[in-house]
Amino acid sequence: MKNYEDLGFSKVDVQREERSGYPEVIFGEGKTPEQIRVIMSILVEKHKKAMVTRLSREKAEALIKHFPEARYDDTSSVLLYGNTDYEYPGSVMVMCAGTSDLPVAEEAALTAEWMGCPTTKLYDVGVAGIDRLLGHRKEITEASVLIVVAGMEGALPSVVGGLVKRPVIAVPTSVGYGTHLQGITPLLSMLTSCSSGMSVVNIDNGFGAGFQAALILKLAADIGGNK
Amino acid sequence: MKNYEDLGFSKVDVQREERSGYPEVIFGEGKTPEQIRVIMSILVEKHKKAMVTRLSREKAEALIKHFPEARYDDTSSVLLYGNTDYEYPGSVMVMCAGTSDLPVAEEAALTAEWMGCPTTKLYDVGVAGIDRLLGHRKEITEASVLIVVAGMEGALPSVVGGLVKRPVIAVPTSVGYGTHLQGITPLLSMLTSCSSGMSVVNIDNGFGAGFQAALILKLAADIGGNK
Amino acid sequence: MKNYEDLGFSKVDVQREERSGYPEVIFGEGKTPEQIRVIMSILVEKHKKAMVTRLSREKAEALIKHFPEARYDDTSSVLLYGNTDYEYPGSVMVMCAGTSDLPVAEEAALTAEWMGCPTTKLYDVGVAGIDRLLGHRKEITEASVLIVVAGMEGALPSVVGGLVKRPVIAVPTSVGYGTHLQGITPLLSMLTSCSSGMSVVNIDNGFGAGFQAALILKLAADIGGNK
Amino acid sequence: MKNYEDLGFSKVDVQREERSGYPEVIFGEGKTPEQIRVIMSILVEKHKKAMVTRLSREKAEALIKHFPEARYDDTSSVLLYGNTDYEYPGSVMVMCAGTSDLPVAEEAALTAEWMGCPTTKLYDVGVAGIDRLLGHRKEITEASVLIVVAGMEGALPSVVGGLVKRPVIAVPTSVGYGTHLQGITPLLSMLTSCSSGMSVVNIDNGFGAGFQAALILKLAADIGGNK
Amino acid sequence: MKNYEDLGFSKVDVQREERSGYPEVIFGEGKTPEQIRVIMSILVEKHKKAMVTRLSREKAEALIKHFPEARYDDTSSVLLYGNTDYEYPGSVMVMCAGTSDLPVAEEAALTAEWMGCPTTKLYDVGVAGIDRLLGHRKEITEASVLIVVAGMEGALPSVVGGLVKRPVIAVPTSVGYGTHLQGITPLLSMLTSCSSGMSVVNIDNGFGAGFQAALILKLAADIGGNK
Amino acid sequence: MKNYEDLGFSKVDVQREERSGYPEVIFGEGKTPEQIRVIMSILVEKHKKAMVTRLSREKAEALIKHFPEARYDDTSSVLLYGNTDYEYPGSVMVMCAGTSDLPVAEEAALTAEWMGCPTTKLYDVGVAGIDRLLGHRKEITEASVLIVVAGMEGALPSVVGGLVKRPVIAVPTSVGYGTHLQGITPLLSMLTSCSSGMSVVNIDNGFGAGFQAALILKLAADIGGNK
Amino acid sequence: MKNYEDLGFSKVDVQREERSGYPEVIFGEGKTPEQIRVIMSILVEKHKKAMVTRLSREKAEALIKHFPEARYDDTSSVLLYGNTDYEYPGSVMVMCAGTSDLPVAEEAALTAEWMGCPTTKLYDVGVAGIDRLLGHRKEITEASVLIVVAGMEGALPSVVGGLVKRPVIAVPTSVGYGTHLQGITPLLSMLTSCSSGMSVVNIDNGFGAGFQAALILKLAADIGGNK
Amino acid sequence: MKNYEDLGFSKVDVQREERSGYPEVIFGEGKTPEQIRVIMSILVEKHKKAMVTRLSREKAEALIKHFPEARYDDTSSVLLYGNTDYEYPGSVMVMCAGTSDLPVAEEAALTAEWMGCPTTKLYDVGVAGIDRLLGHRKEITEASVLIVVAGMEGALPSVVGGLVKRPVIAVPTSVGYGTHLQGITPLLSMLTSCSSGMSVVNIDNGFGAGFQAALILKLAADIGGNK
Repeated sequence: MKNYEDLGFSKVDVQREERSGYPEVIFGEGKTPEQIRVIMSILVEKHKKAMVTRLSREKAEALIKHFPEARYDDTSSVLLYGNTDYEYPGSVMVMCAGTSDLPVAEEAALTAEWMGCPTTKLYDVGVAGIDRLLGHRKEITEASVLIVVAGMEGALPSVVGGLVKRPVIAVPTSVGYGTHLQGITPLLSMLTSCSSGMSVVNIDNGFGAGFQAALILKLAADIGGNK
Repeated sequence: MKNYEDLGFSKVDVQREERSGYPEVIFGEGKTPEQIRVIMSILVEKHKKAMVTRLSREKAEALIKHFPEARYDDTSSVLLYGNTDYEYPGSVMVMCAGTSDLPVAEEAALTAEWMGCPTTKLYDVGVAGIDRLLGHRKEITEASVLIVVAGMEGALPSVVGGLVKRPVIAVPTSVGYGTHLQGITPLLSMLTSCSSGMSVVNIDNGFGAGFQAALILKLAADIGGNK
Repeated sequence: MKNYEDLGFSKVDVQREERSGYPEVIFGEGKTPEQIRVIMSILVEKHKKAMVTRLSREKAEALIKHFPEARYDDTSSVLLYGNTDYEYPGSVMVMCAGTSDLPVAEEAALTAEWMGCPTTKLYDVGVAGIDRLLGHRKEITEASVLIVVAGMEGALPSVVGGLVKRPVIAVPTSVGYGTHLQGITPLLSMLTSCSSGMSVVNIDNGFGAGFQAALILKLAADIGGNK
Repeated sequence: MKNYEDLGFSKVDVQREERSGYPEVIFGEGKTPEQIRVIMSILVEKHKKAMVTRLSREKAEALIKHFPEARYDDTSSVLLYGNTDYEYPGSVMVMCAGTSDLPVAEEAALTAEWMGCPTTKLYDVGVAGIDRLLGHRKEITEASVLIVVAGMEGALPSVVGGLVKRPVIAVPTSVGYGTHLQGITPLLSMLTSCSSGMSVVNIDNGFGAGFQAALILKLAADIGGNK
Repeated sequence: MKNYEDLGFSKVDVQREERSGYPEVIFGEGKTPEQIRVIMSILVEKHKKAMVTRLSREKAEALIKHFPEARYDDTSSVLLYGNTDYEYPGSVMVMCAGTSDLPVAEEAALTAEWMGCPTTKLYDVGVAGIDRLLGHRKEITEASVLIVVAGMEGALPSVVGGLVKRPVIAVPTSVGYGTHLQGITPLLSMLTSCSSGMSVVNIDNGFGAGFQAALILKLAADIGGNK
Repeated sequence: MKNYEDLGFSKVDVQREERSGYPEVIFGEGKTPEQIRVIMSILVEKHKKAMVTRLSREKAEALIKHFPEARYDDTSSVLLYGNTDYEYPGSVMVMCAGTSDLPVAEEAALTAEWMGCPTTKLYDVGVAGIDRLLGHRKEITEASVLIVVAGMEGALPSVVGGLVKRPVIAVPTSVGYGTHLQGITPLLSMLTSCSSGMSVVNIDNGFGAGFQAALILKLAADIGGNK
Repeated sequence: MKNYEDLGFSKVDVQREERSGYPEVIFGEGKTPEQIRVIMSILVEKHKKAMVTRLSREKAEALIKHFPEARYDDTSSVLLYGNTDYEYPGSVMVMCAGTSDLPVAEEAALTAEWMGCPTTKLYDVGVAGIDRLLGHRKEITEASVLIVVAGMEGALPSVVGGLVKRPVIAVPTSVGYGTHLQGITPLLSMLTSCSSGMSVVNIDNGFGAGFQAALILKLAADIGGNK
Repeated sequence: MKNYEDLGFSKVDVQREERSGYPEVIFGEGKTPEQIRVIMSILVEKHKKAMVTRLSREKAEALIKHFPEARYDDTSSVLLYGNTDYEYPGSVMVMCAGTSDLPVAEEAALTAEWMGCPTTKLYDVGVAGIDRLLGHRKEITEASVLIVVAGMEGALPSVVGGLVKRPVIAVPTSVGYGTHLQGITPLLSMLTSCSSGMSVVNIDNGFGAGFQAALILKLAADIGGNK
């Protein structure tokens, strides 16, 4: 039995759900609508669900003609097909520092939701107005996992990390100018954070953060129980 | 009631256990033995346990005179005092790519253990000898959280990430030369990984990885239950 | 006797075949179709064959009007004229990690073929699905030279290098985002690889990898024989 | 009349007090005690005061033999001679994020004091324990100018900048490891800050921050008055 | 009482004037005209004035339809609404090194003026023609705060810093090519300056420099008086 | 049957000779003499030969006590034990640009020799004295594989690459100062070379170049024959 | 008497010819045709000649309407008005490594000629075909000053520097891809060159190289004579 | 007739004087005293003079035992043997910005003098005290060639370049801290300078600047004469 479908230009990893818990997700950037359609057909047939990230509206419209049940989100440029039929215990809070970080934050939230996580959102709570953040301290400390998205100097995750006893996944964004260096600065800042319990994903990688958050809730669901 | 002890040169955060789940951990580098002794006394009195990282043997010996119950680990340069009296469900696997990555791997393992995590270890399984890694596939897929430590080109976490359905925390190390750039290369490599479900901490930050792994198991213990 | 044709804007190196074993190859980027036509005419007259890399479809169409026997490959943007009339012993395997690496991989394969090498191809075998790679272990170990193309974190050559007793030429690609740094990350990663017997060419330089692979097979053809 | 003393190896700028408001300050690093002694003699004779920064204890001891009234501060490695005989209105608050930032913070404070500024200090108030910082909100908002010193990810100035209506001068320090890049990371972070009203000086340049803070208070003293 | 208006995509900080002395300023880049209009409405209602930076002419025209009293400046891409009804003592001099630095210089000047500062301007006085600069020495030394804008190698602030006894705020610009590195070179140059009393803001951040200059004059107005 | 010996701190890859054609080579830097001794014992027992690179004289002397037949080379810091009992056809020429590149060049030469390659050497032929190089044109064009070692600007491989029809492996060295950036400059220069048929290894990685050269000659020996 | 014309947006340095030997040259990039026209009018009136660099054909055509005697060169994007009426002794040789470096080489040549230098040209003599270069050894050694333009790895100046007893000015170009880093690699390479007697200008700065070459010939004309 | 002496570890280029106008100069760093002695013997025998740069006092003392006529300069770490018996017309002015730049400035001056140039020196004239510089305007404009040495932000050459009609050679130094980046900042600053007629050499490369300055005076001597 083969563990992938060989399409020549691509080897679709149809065994990934067994191995990794979730079907392969399609990275839409740099693929033609036709390439995506073929890969998506295999995934839909096998798993009854599919997700495409970094997909332009144009490509999305072409795909929706073939998959009318699919739904496209303009903010995050994500296309979803199918749903999870379960929900994990706990919840993922997605926070962001500024209005311009929304596309990345929404990609994270949609990913976590599609993988079975309840999510809450807290947007535009950058550290330059610390009271906006601290006004939500209760919700923040109640979340199970926190995805903290920030561009500019990337300081928000450090502050959040100091408020909670839960894992924080920091996502730097490419929103900024000059010394922001297309996201290198918040990335370095987050990696150098003085807060413990925090880890970091690639610039603008909302998907990766949502994915890891879901793996954490899944783990809690699978092995949890009081100490 | 004050939430910290003010020592002038330091404000010891004695409320951190309530807030973050664990007492403050002392970063030993750049502090004098006397500074560490004072801070450690407050933490030991308050929490009955303490941990000091990046502590040279010389400083450790000076401290052990004051805290004879403390124990020092030469490989990781960690000093521990006290123990957790509980153990989380699940387990943390600490892997490393090469022999020279051991200090960082051991720092991660000791941190996770001291915080209540059962740990397993799989060392010197770099990708240039992929069979050494795959020979342990079963143990790898059974771990709850995986800390993957690697210097050089930092490829190990990408391979491990593709084998498991659990969160992977990647730790780049400063072991290498030339284009390794003191750990920048494995760091960038890990952040750019094609594997989902993986996040990254600072170069040589075994402590941070162990800490986040423990927060994940703690979460599972606190909120877990089958979906 | 002059060893080049002086065109004013260019000195065409008509002696290169004698010196280097192959005629000069034209780098199409940044040259006008007319400049390329003139240089190509000299090469075709002298060598009965020519190769142009990094050529847009528009320029290619203009050139094919003058050289109707020439053939253009859309994936790699390479134009070829004429053929080798020999074939080296052994074979070059061209591998790539992801679908988006195809243009570079095909440039490498076409170059090696045009220079007289039998080639085999193994595409979309990134390390996050290691079984897709290892399922081809036999073919991999039988190749004479391996060209391994990868974007993202560039981990594939390290794994391949550990499987074979043959030279590996690694090619980083500019496919990725954020910390990928337009290919700098896989480049650094490949240079820092823990695998021996591997060397690296410039980002996206499929041509250079194919060229060196052909020189290796040519050497084997010229001097080979059992020890 | 010459506006400097020409010592061959140095041209001592004896007119700087008139021009810039303060005598030249000696940068001690890389000068021999004898060179410093000669320059300092000229300054003391002319201005009755002198300041030497980045001076090792060894060199300081040699100098104190010649200038017994001089006083040396071990934390900041600053040597001072003479005093201002005035005090500006307002005050400079010097804050730092961690214990290891003290040398830079003290250099800033000593500079500002020596130039005539009342100072207050608030140390070890990093953002990972935001309550330590906010517990001092009243003092913070009452300061006239704030010098905020931070290593690691350099997030403290962003938070402080959002709390006050006064100018903030941020000073990154070289305290950190790995992605901290010897202070480049907090520097970039501070420059990219989402807080308005903040500017930045060179890594570890406590002197520069203290100097500018004093110029600001001096300006207030010179031209001030209600709008 | 809430200290911000929650618009979902944005939390407008209506308390900032009390806290920071000035209402929130809208960063126009990356926001839709509709988003800006909503935020601006809240600010206008609350404060009777508003400022939008980095706003294209197209967006400005759309906004002026809603706010006919607003005025747009093409050089700096700034939109202003309302006026201060006071003027601080002292003055801000805005200088720039070359003609191409004008947009940044004008952004700084408009910001300072809108916040209540008298300003003077001295443009195109780069150090390669030092006499153009020194011909204005008197005006330069009379300014209260100096904003010095420069692209290329960023040398102007160092020279100006040596002429005055007042705070200098240096602004690097993205004007240049090659080794100018989009403004990184003048930024590094300014941070490394041998002049005391100087601090630096982000590349092209005329707004930030103008804002800090205004805070300094405001401080002088609030607390000033002779020593 | 296990394909490695598990020493706890290391998993010795005793199957590598079968898989890769050569036994594992020990990287001496960062290992204790005792660790090296244990690993070396296993390798010597299994393969009758061993090689240790980057070994200080002190560690070498400690090892020679256990392995009296081993021989140490001071220039390259390599320890060798045992010999190949065969010699490949063809030859490897090792060239270097300057006297200070000798340690890297000798590491390359010793590696290739120990693996069965005849070698020739051409040292101190930097391009600033091009006649020194071209005086050896005949030997250069007769070599089967060329290893070209250069620090400073790394120009030598580009010139050599244009003279020959054989594969060139370029090795940048860390010899230089200032803009040489510890070898980054010759590395980038070599990767960007206008010569075809050339690939590059890590800075100072003479071993890697020698290893790949030997794999090329081995291939020629294994599969060679005229086209 | 004023030493510049103040246009508000620009201060035209009309005294530069006296001070620097040549009138101010207009950098065309980022200026409007109208701005250039005004500045050019002043220069033409004062000096009877003018030069504009980095000028697009569109802007050039608009300017030629006002200055019909002006002539525009498409390769270098330079506009010239007027001529020198003298010619320096000696000659400037402008060399370039590849066809794509022509625009920069021609900018250098036109600059030097317009300033009074006889020039010779030697193009497309990259080091990968060293015989093309050495075939011109006689002309090369006879030049008075050599401007050597190169993209890619920038090796040509090192070789030329070793052939001559005259000053070499190296110009890196932005022609290349991948590790070429938009010209940073040849720049670093040239700065690190093992050849003495060579200096470097900014990436693509043909103008600067031509200008310095002319200053050198002018010096020879002004002070020369046999020792 | 051989054009070099082959010492095995070095090929001494005894023909360089004919080719380049000057004998080979020995770079002392990284060579043993014995290696230097052998090379120096050949050069002294052939040319009656020799120069060694970057030579420690220890090595110098060892060499002076063999070459008692040699003289060593402690500031620049240069060893000289023999003298020129001619003097070029014109003069080289060596300037530096700060006291710590003296070693590099003296290396430049000694090199130029040893090669036959009259030199003048102007030290510690950094731009933060512009009057110290402008007080010497007459001498500056009278120099034939200007070598301008600066660490920190490297602004001095830009100002000097605007004052003179002669070629300026800028030398960045490694004197500074933090954002100075071991000399990268003044290097970039000098390359990006808005002054024409200036070129740049490697960080701390006083020798290279002195060498080029001498080639310029030599050219003037060889070909000069009024236009």
